[in-house]
Amino acid sequence: MKSKKFLMQESDIPQAWYNVIPDMPVKPAPLIHPATKQPLKEEDLYPIFSKAASQQELNTTDRWIEIPDEVREMYRIWRPTPLVRAEGLEKLLDTPAHIYFKNESVSPVGSHKLNSAIAQAYYCKQEGVTNITTETGAGQWGAALALAAKHFGLELAVYMVKISYEQKPYRRSIMQTYGAEVIASPSMSTRAGKDIITRSPNYQGSLGTAISEAVELATTTPNCKYVLGSVLNHVALHQTVIGLEAEKQMEMAGEYPDTIIACFGGGSNFSGLAMPFLRHKLNGDNPDTQFIAAEPASCPKLTRGVFRYDFGDEAGYTPLIPMLTLGHNFKPANIHAGGLRYHGAGAIISQLKHDEIIDAVDIPQLESFDAATLFARAEGIIPAPESSHAIAATIREAIKAREEGKKKVILFNLSGHGLIDMTAYDRFFANDLTNYEIPDSIIAQNTAGLDPVKP
Amino acid sequence: MKSKKFLMQESDIPQAWYNVIPDMPVKPAPLIHPATKQPLKEEDLYPIFSKAASQQELNTTDRWIEIPDEVREMYRIWRPTPLVRAEGLEKLLDTPAHIYFKNESVSPVGSHKLNSAIAQAYYCKQEGVTNITTETGAGQWGAALALAAKHFGLELAVYMVKISYEQKPYRRSIMQTYGAEVIASPSMSTRAGKDIITRSPNYQGSLGTAISEAVELATTTPNCKYVLGSVLNHVALHQTVIGLEAEKQMEMAGEYPDTIIACFGGGSNFSGLAMPFLRHKLNGDNPDTQFIAAEPASCPKLTRGVFRYDFGDEAGYTPLIPMLTLGHNFKPANIHAGGLRYHGAGAIISQLKHDEIIDAVDIPQLESFDAATLFARAEGIIPAPESSHAIAATIREAIKAREEGKKKVILFNLSGHGLIDMTAYDRFFANDLTNYEIPDSIIAQNTAGLDPVKP
Repeated sequence: MKSKKFLMQESDIPQAWYNVIPDMPVKPAPLIHPATKQPLKEEDLYPIFSKAASQQELNTTDRWIEIPDEVREMYRIWRPTPLVRAEGLEKLLDTPAHIYFKNESVSPVGSHKLNSAIAQAYYCKQEGVTNITTETGAGQWGAALALAAKHFGLELAVYMVKISYEQKPYRRSIMQTYGAEVIASPSMSTRAGKDIITRSPNYQGSLGTAISEAVELATTTPNCKYVLGSVLNHVALHQTVIGLEAEKQMEMAGEYPDTIIACFGGGSNFSGLAMPFLRHKLNGDNPDTQFIAAEPASCPKLTRGVFRYDFGDEAGYTPLIPMLTLGHNFKPANIHAGGLRYHGAGAIISQLKHDEIIDAVDIPQLESFDAATLFARAEGIIPAPESSHAIAATIREAIKAREEGKKKVILFNLSGHGLIDMTAYDRFFANDLTNYEIPDSIIAQNTAGLDPVKP
Repeated sequence: MKSKKFLMQESDIPQAWYNVIPDMPVKPAPLIHPATKQPLKEEDLYPIFSKAASQQELNTTDRWIEIPDEVREMYRIWRPTPLVRAEGLEKLLDTPAHIYFKNESVSPVGSHKLNSAIAQAYYCKQEGVTNITTETGAGQWGAALALAAKHFGLELAVYMVKISYEQKPYRRSIMQTYGAEVIASPSMSTRAGKDIITRSPNYQGSLGTAISEAVELATTTPNCKYVLGSVLNHVALHQTVIGLEAEKQMEMAGEYPDTIIACFGGGSNFSGLAMPFLRHKLNGDNPDTQFIAAEPASCPKLTRGVFRYDFGDEAGYTPLIPMLTLGHNFKPANIHAGGLRYHGAGAIISQLKHDEIIDAVDIPQLESFDAATLFARAEGIIPAPESSHAIAATIREAIKAREEGKKKVILFNLSGHGLIDMTAYDRFFANDLTNYEIPDSIIAQNTAGLDPVKP
């Protein structure tokens, strides 16, 4: 645990976010309006999102988007985050690899989610919005948005998947402490919720249903917008502060990563770390850098999904997104990495994976907790179950380096800490967790009939 | 939430701890051996504590104690911690006061406890100890020691008060994740535990009983030492890194505190912040600085206790300590700030309070949670229920400054975050918490017969 930190000053917080699309050799295919089947226009997004977010979502030309002063000011609460050389872990693995991690767990809500929550809340406030709404599964995104909403004086209603609402009371309480209203979903407050409760009174909810409720609330309430925590381009954009800071910090360390790893749910923390480094691969300066998205074996859209147009939510309210998907009705197993239980990847990452510019691995649940425990004991930080997938992938690479006798520089994203996920660790120590196998037939069944993405 | 941070580099981690005793106008009275009634000698402590800790405990002459390199190296995991100007809180309170806080919540276990855990584990390792043991109430100290023990390769057994073991599973799991054994106390593993279980099979445990079990294990097990998280001089000593860093950071901010505030349980975080600043009061450089210990109204040893010789534990196994005490059999009400539920103050703080060099206030439970919620919404960080007492005292001072129209510089210690204490917030929001009144008669009854401290 003699790990060295690379710290920066507040003045080093990036001035602009990086948009990777202008540098992509093949641009992502357009979002499609589900009714007209035409490429989506910016205005089509206005009823749901803030105008600024809508604009950023479809911006394929500007590499750099200025970060508003008010957003940078709030980033100062916890940014820049440390870059850490994980010497304790290196020693334990007896590897010649140099392992670095970007520690996004130091945010007051314990995860990277705040990077985009602040930006989105800010834009809503700027545009005169008074109420915002979102969904949350495990609660990390909801907690981040609750803090941001309070700061900008917005009322926030969070639809929290009912089973999480009951089983994960800590993150619910965090949202309430910041002043947000938290509603167990399905609820009687929306038509979508009522319909489901009427049909299945004991239904425990899903992310898909919660999204439907939040979107319905946003579109039927004056001055109310919907805010999303992952998947979409503008969310990934806001997260690039992670990689931009890490780039400078790797310079301070005098090294450049050979391999960049992050866990993968909808893509927000992976994109945030990877994209700024990716531009040096795409422009030929560092063509050999490897990018690895670590997804759960129980929800393997990148490694086993199909590249199709699919909905972002279960109910089919969103635009059609060109994505690597397991099908929007795919029901991920009940793993503890709640933030990774999502059926598809965003348009940018899907295209990059399709074009073999980035790689992906799938990590079984038990391997992720083994890795988490090892990391906690070596580095002193208990990782979130989501981040543990990145650690497991890192350990695989570090062991490979040992076996090959090769020095290798690995950088991974510690997207959050696990202090609010200790029930998951409890179950792991009690041998009460399992891996989950997904038969090909389930994937085939769930993705049948989806339209292919045309180049 | 535009709060400014003052950050330092790893090289700014102090090289030495500060021992206030040489600068005290009246030294603390000696610890007394309960059997011989003679002042305690260093060797008397060897069966329980490491030799280094025993030596530090009785050191009344050396102002500066060098911090071993191995300890400083581990401090680098999260130190130096930020000093933050709480501009969000200032604005909300509309106060001319400048409010600063030292953010000790950024440690990987979420509190300041790690500062001493690392030092004590290090000394045990150096002296060839293989096993250590301690007690824990809410679990913050146990979690910190579990991390430190793992790092230095020591086996750790933690006696956790049974009701906390059952009601606060998160901190128990954190200790287990770091590899510690956690035993609900009373247990059948010690005579003290067995005796109590035999007498009262449904007894839910107390800190006093847990201390008895840990001390018994340490004294009956080869190569095993007992380690304590507060109260004693050597623990306070290790915590002075907090104030030494804060001193430099206040210089960076260009101000010097008029008032220094920390919550008070056994004294570890209060001493840690206050003592380095206290030396400038004692030597006359800053004679007017005010020091305020914020204790819970339900456990008011500083404001309503008597200055007597008393035991540090309920069962009476420890040396007699010259302390402001409510009596070692005082049963603090079941408030959520578990870390403040202790009957006495350490020898140094008791003497300083007795000599009117430091002040104290008592904070009712509901006021502490009101303050916590206000702070969370203003500064984005959810504080530990313990630290919330310091926030409440700070708010009182800031409002006073507003009423008097006086600028005033306040510095308080945010000893930990409350992310693992959300059940307490839940109960607060549900109006399920109360204040507790302690009648004078209870204090008189519990302290009757204790020997006075002779000057």
